[in-house]
Amino acid sequence: MKDLLGRDEAVTVEEALRLLNEQKLKLPVTESIPIENAFGRALAQDIVSPENLPGFNRSTMDGYAVNSADTFGASDTMPVYLQIKGQVLMGQRPEIRLRRGEACQIPTGGMLPEGADAIVMFEYTSRLDNEMVEIMKTVSPGENVIMFDEDVKKGEVILKAGHRLRPQDIGALAGLGILEIEVYGKPVAAIISTGDEVVPVDKPLSIGEVRDINSYNLAGMISACHAVPLKKGIVKDDLDILREAVKQALNSSDMLLITGGSSVGVADYTARVINELGSPGVLFHGVAMKPGKPVIGGIVDGKPVFGLPGHPAAITVSFETFIEPLLIRLSGEIPNPVIPSRRTVRALFSRNLSSAVGREEHVRVYVEKRNGALWAVPVLGKSGLVRTLVQADGIVVIPMNKSGIYEGEEVEVRLFRD
Amino acid sequence: MKDLLGRDEAVTVEEALRLLNEQKLKLPVTESIPIENAFGRALAQDIVSPENLPGFNRSTMDGYAVNSADTFGASDTMPVYLQIKGQVLMGQRPEIRLRRGEACQIPTGGMLPEGADAIVMFEYTSRLDNEMVEIMKTVSPGENVIMFDEDVKKGEVILKAGHRLRPQDIGALAGLGILEIEVYGKPVAAIISTGDEVVPVDKPLSIGEVRDINSYNLAGMISACHAVPLKKGIVKDDLDILREAVKQALNSSDMLLITGGSSVGVADYTARVINELGSPGVLFHGVAMKPGKPVIGGIVDGKPVFGLPGHPAAITVSFETFIEPLLIRLSGEIPNPVIPSRRTVRALFSRNLSSAVGREEHVRVYVEKRNGALWAVPVLGKSGLVRTLVQADGIVVIPMNKSGIYEGEEVEVRLFRD
Repeated sequence: MKDLLGRDEAVTVEEALRLLNEQKLKLPVTESIPIENAFGRALAQDIVSPENLPGFNRSTMDGYAVNSADTFGASDTMPVYLQIKGQVLMGQRPEIRLRRGEACQIPTGGMLPEGADAIVMFEYTSRLDNEMVEIMKTVSPGENVIMFDEDVKKGEVILKAGHRLRPQDIGALAGLGILEIEVYGKPVAAIISTGDEVVPVDKPLSIGEVRDINSYNLAGMISACHAVPLKKGIVKDDLDILREAVKQALNSSDMLLITGGSSVGVADYTARVINELGSPGVLFHGVAMKPGKPVIGGIVDGKPVFGLPGHPAAITVSFETFIEPLLIRLSGEIPNPVIPSRRTVRALFSRNLSSAVGREEHVRVYVEKRNGALWAVPVLGKSGLVRTLVQADGIVVIPMNKSGIYEGEEVEVRLFRD
Repeated sequence: MKDLLGRDEAVTVEEALRLLNEQKLKLPVTESIPIENAFGRALAQDIVSPENLPGFNRSTMDGYAVNSADTFGASDTMPVYLQIKGQVLMGQRPEIRLRRGEACQIPTGGMLPEGADAIVMFEYTSRLDNEMVEIMKTVSPGENVIMFDEDVKKGEVILKAGHRLRPQDIGALAGLGILEIEVYGKPVAAIISTGDEVVPVDKPLSIGEVRDINSYNLAGMISACHAVPLKKGIVKDDLDILREAVKQALNSSDMLLITGGSSVGVADYTARVINELGSPGVLFHGVAMKPGKPVIGGIVDGKPVFGLPGHPAAITVSFETFIEPLLIRLSGEIPNPVIPSRRTVRALFSRNLSSAVGREEHVRVYVEKRNGALWAVPVLGKSGLVRTLVQADGIVVIPMNKSGIYEGEEVEVRLFRD
């Protein structure tokens, strides 16, 4: 559908996300890497445990290993007395075999001797001499013990393909002796800046020119998503040059972001190039959101290509809304839908703010404490301003069916990444 | 204060944090780096703008540059007619000087010609021929224009020392042509694993031994805090060897984490070494929390040193509670107290769970959706288990003055980093 100016009509944010989500993506090739480099990477294989963990019956307390039946009825006032039978040393298989009526000192992490099935903590014991210990508590079988296969069983799937590895997951792999794993390659997101007025940041600025702010902002956001930014420089507003640059950039990346080329203007060739270079091409051109309305979203042979408006605030909002979820998909992660991907904070909105029904508004806010309550204060200003992004802590979204926010209304602030 | 077993009495979490916070830390030396490497680093200098941004009066819309006074009263039904005086090209200073009654086509980002003070969007114009354009809207002075110093004024402090740089901050620096900045060095956190039963992950395991899980878990958490992990290997339970290893590790790091050496046991030399090597030494030994009770916290000549219990869950909880805030301080960041450092999600607790009054309990939970509501389901299990960490999505804290959580009670889940 075209509007009166020959532009495609804006789709809703929901519709744009649906159009992107139903497309198959070309995931980066998988690679085998050592676990120490795997933090933040998505597993390309299920991890099957090669062994039981901890592999032996292990004490979780400092105390005495006992046969729990011997402690039956023991209490402060009615202790039982057990014969001391040596000591378990850390990291060694105990030679001792406990008989009924015997106990053996054991440190946290020590291996239970044969005949023992529980640990009495030191706190509930009193050593009378080298021969005898007083036990002042009844313990059940397995108390203060991790059984040999209680943590992980041999052959069990401990982590699934599509899981993004957190620090403790790497710890678990180390614990199982798995030192190399198959993960998805980090997605590479190429950035092309367009616009005859855009100049490299290290060039002296003439009147009418602006520095290439957006490739820096985008590179940071891409890195924060465990992906790799690849800056492909600034391209002049020329169809043939842009087509060639896009073709080259797509050869060395999994996603392409073109900034500055999505406003309606004489130099707007982005949509045309996306359609020319592969299928399905442009999925939407214009989204009912503010800022970010002129965003172009497309897929070229499994690789997402975006035309982003040149305003810094629009770049951030478009990235968070459309590009971040795609980078997560490209990383191979199958995200848990109930886990939010971003930090949030609840606050009271500081003023009345109206919003046009029919478009989703992303309001930049900073958060401050006043009289014990948190307030979200909108940072108003034109979306071209760098200041509004630097001063803001995050975004409050006004849904498209709402006509605004009242002063004092509770809102959720989605915080920027750091 | 010692308890009956000769141990120091546990302090509360609040008290432990207070003891750490009142200590002065030795911050890493600052360094000058290019802005493209500065994401996540803390500024060691105020950033003063060397120039006005955008530096020229800039259009924020595609349309016609006009003298706003000429549009007074213009509407759909009462348009005004202006003489077309050429066109502004992107990135170029316009030669044109608008007189009253004239308008000039301008793209988004274009520089306003002299004599113009506002932009009328294309939507509200109709070009009659090459000479004349119909204006159907009244614009105010400055409408759809960013003034030359409206974004940033020359000499203004745009970012303050102690601010951790986010993607848009790097964009702002690029926009101002600031390409190198002074930041704090990344804090280096050394890790020593202790315990006669702990073996390197690449060594075949004998009965009674466990692999060095914790240094992997810790290294991931340290990296996630924009800091650098430095593994110093496994040290046997020997006072002299440990003292030497700690001394060496402190020479090449800003913080030291010693795992496995904080249980009460024959091999517990950590506290002694911390006290011997510098002042003030041990600040607390034992905290009223679960897991993580045996944690030792100290400072050796401005460098934090921790003795951490060997259980993976205790490692994670101690790290999140004590070490993460110190790493943030060591990074040079002055954190905004109203901004949470972690992702959270609100959920209903899935069952009754009691907790001892007098200690803070950190319950690992996973989050799931049932009948449209989010539930936090505790992953129960001994804190030695890797599984409880791998299955969990995050932590619910039961404060020390609460005796538990009821089924259906709303809780905040603090999610693990990824």
